[in-house]
Amino acid sequence: MAIQAVLQRDIVDESRFESVQSATREAWLQVTGKVAKKRPPSVAEGEPIPPPEFEVNVVSGAILAMAAAPLPVGVTDEVNVGLDVRLDNRHLDVRRAHVNAMFQLRSKVLQYGREHLISEGFQEINSPKIIAAAAEGGTNLFPMKYFETDAYLSQSPQLYKQLAVLGGLERVFEIGPAFRAEKHDTYRHLNEFVSFDIEGAWMDDDDVMGVQERMIHHIWSCVSSNDQALIDVVNEYRASQGKEPVTVEVPSMPFPRIPYCDAIEIVKQGGGDIEWGDDIESHHCDIIAAKHPGFHFIPRWPIARKPFPIPPNEK
Amino acid sequence: MAIQAVLQRDIVDESRFESVQSATREAWLQVTGKVAKKRPPSVAEGEPIPPPEFEVNVVSGAILAMAAAPLPVGVTDEVNVGLDVRLDNRHLDVRRAHVNAMFQLRSKVLQYGREHLISEGFQEINSPKIIAAAAEGGTNLFPMKYFETDAYLSQSPQLYKQLAVLGGLERVFEIGPAFRAEKHDTYRHLNEFVSFDIEGAWMDDDDVMGVQERMIHHIWSCVSSNDQALIDVVNEYRASQGKEPVTVEVPSMPFPRIPYCDAIEIVKQGGGDIEWGDDIESHHCDIIAAKHPGFHFIPRWPIARKPFPIPPNEK
Repeated sequence: MAIQAVLQRDIVDESRFESVQSATREAWLQVTGKVAKKRPPSVAEGEPIPPPEFEVNVVSGAILAMAAAPLPVGVTDEVNVGLDVRLDNRHLDVRRAHVNAMFQLRSKVLQYGREHLISEGFQEINSPKIIAAAAEGGTNLFPMKYFETDAYLSQSPQLYKQLAVLGGLERVFEIGPAFRAEKHDTYRHLNEFVSFDIEGAWMDDDDVMGVQERMIHHIWSCVSSNDQALIDVVNEYRASQGKEPVTVEVPSMPFPRIPYCDAIEIVKQGGGDIEWGDDIESHHCDIIAAKHPGFHFIPRWPIARKPFPIPPNEK
Repeated sequence: MAIQAVLQRDIVDESRFESVQSATREAWLQVTGKVAKKRPPSVAEGEPIPPPEFEVNVVSGAILAMAAAPLPVGVTDEVNVGLDVRLDNRHLDVRRAHVNAMFQLRSKVLQYGREHLISEGFQEINSPKIIAAAAEGGTNLFPMKYFETDAYLSQSPQLYKQLAVLGGLERVFEIGPAFRAEKHDTYRHLNEFVSFDIEGAWMDDDDVMGVQERMIHHIWSCVSSNDQALIDVVNEYRASQGKEPVTVEVPSMPFPRIPYCDAIEIVKQGGGDIEWGDDIESHHCDIIAAKHPGFHFIPRWPIARKPFPIPPNEK
């Protein structure tokens, strides 16, 4: 939240006024003053009077820290800089309102997701990230040295989640980092990412999809109800760039189920090069998403494509 | 929660009865039946009648999965096994009621701690765990290879938290793994651990201690109010081992502040070998804890012992 502070030349002494006036953009100021209602704007007769706004009438102030001028990355001004400059000055980049809003939204998504899982009886665990052997297939592991021993970074909490579930915790989740030494550069291949990992006992695939869609529905509903102000900040920036606004559309449940066999047909009909039994790659998903643009599941994969912990589906 | 299921020979057919009766300990059974009130126990005249208990009167049942017999680790029986056997059979070890209760309590502690930080306006972040340079001093880093580049596992989210705070998030936290290649074997030296990391702007040491003591107070209060049943399970086990019960004593606030200078005096008076300017080691802490057995802070350290992000305290 921002509030305007007004420093009047006739209220503070001259040298203090000059000093504060020399503040650069993004300098840190400390001010003391009185909160006052702003003079209301004049409105045409019959128009509603807008809610009152407030400001601080400053009686004393000082500069705590001066900022460099010019800044390497503009914070309130629109400056076009490359990603490398932004990352080299990430502390300033994150101060840009729309970037900051995205980090705040990210924090909310973690909170709502976790809240929902706890409400469905899932308990939080933390699994080791330094592991002695592979959890899922063994490819794409980052090797490391654990003192004199060869070790790896964990790709997934999979085996630890299952251990906890078999251990009688019944429903567990972990939200934490996972590491995959993927050389591909797509949005489905990341070297380090934060995953929502969920595991439950006595669930079939419909139960599992139910947990996921209810969690996503809860997150979207909460963002839609509570966090529109943050979305608005992002959209102000997007408008300044001539981009369409993002909207939070709470998905309706249940999400469509597109069984693997149907998904293969959709990809084929959309001109994709795929055969039954193949993996569905991200460019295939784009073809499916053209027909099913919202959240959807692709269940009922050939058992030959599944890692060992998945039992055959008898339906 | 456990409930008793009763299978009567005259209700199910003979072969089904024999089959279910052959179930080993920890086998998984599926039963169908009616929930019924148990016959109340006979009480002496004038004694209060205990609340009703329930059981399931089984009409059909089947074994879903048989367990090995004997089990490598007893689950309901008291079996003394070494730590190596417990860890090799951790899925069974966690099924022991008191071990399971500790994992449940751990999940609650994470939940209450996070809830409290969110209530004080802290936002959750996730910092990278694969890093290019050291955050705190550079010793005790686990080296790894990030493809062809030398990299390390993160010791602490310190610099990333500060970046987020400077970036205008103002109050942030992360609950996640940290990695330290410590060869010592004490409870203050761990190679991989989950840390509650908290950072805020415009706070002095009193503000920081306030955040910590309020969070710990909230966690202890919630466990005390909500989770006594889990503590009781742990204490049942401890009683069976002839050990004192653990109690959840909600600490009163503020926690004692023992400034560094006073702490050094306490250690000296307690016979510890220490001089002003030295680090306070864990065996020194034991001497301090004998005088201040509850939670306490040791603020006001010599600035020479502090890493670079800490400003001098002018008080």
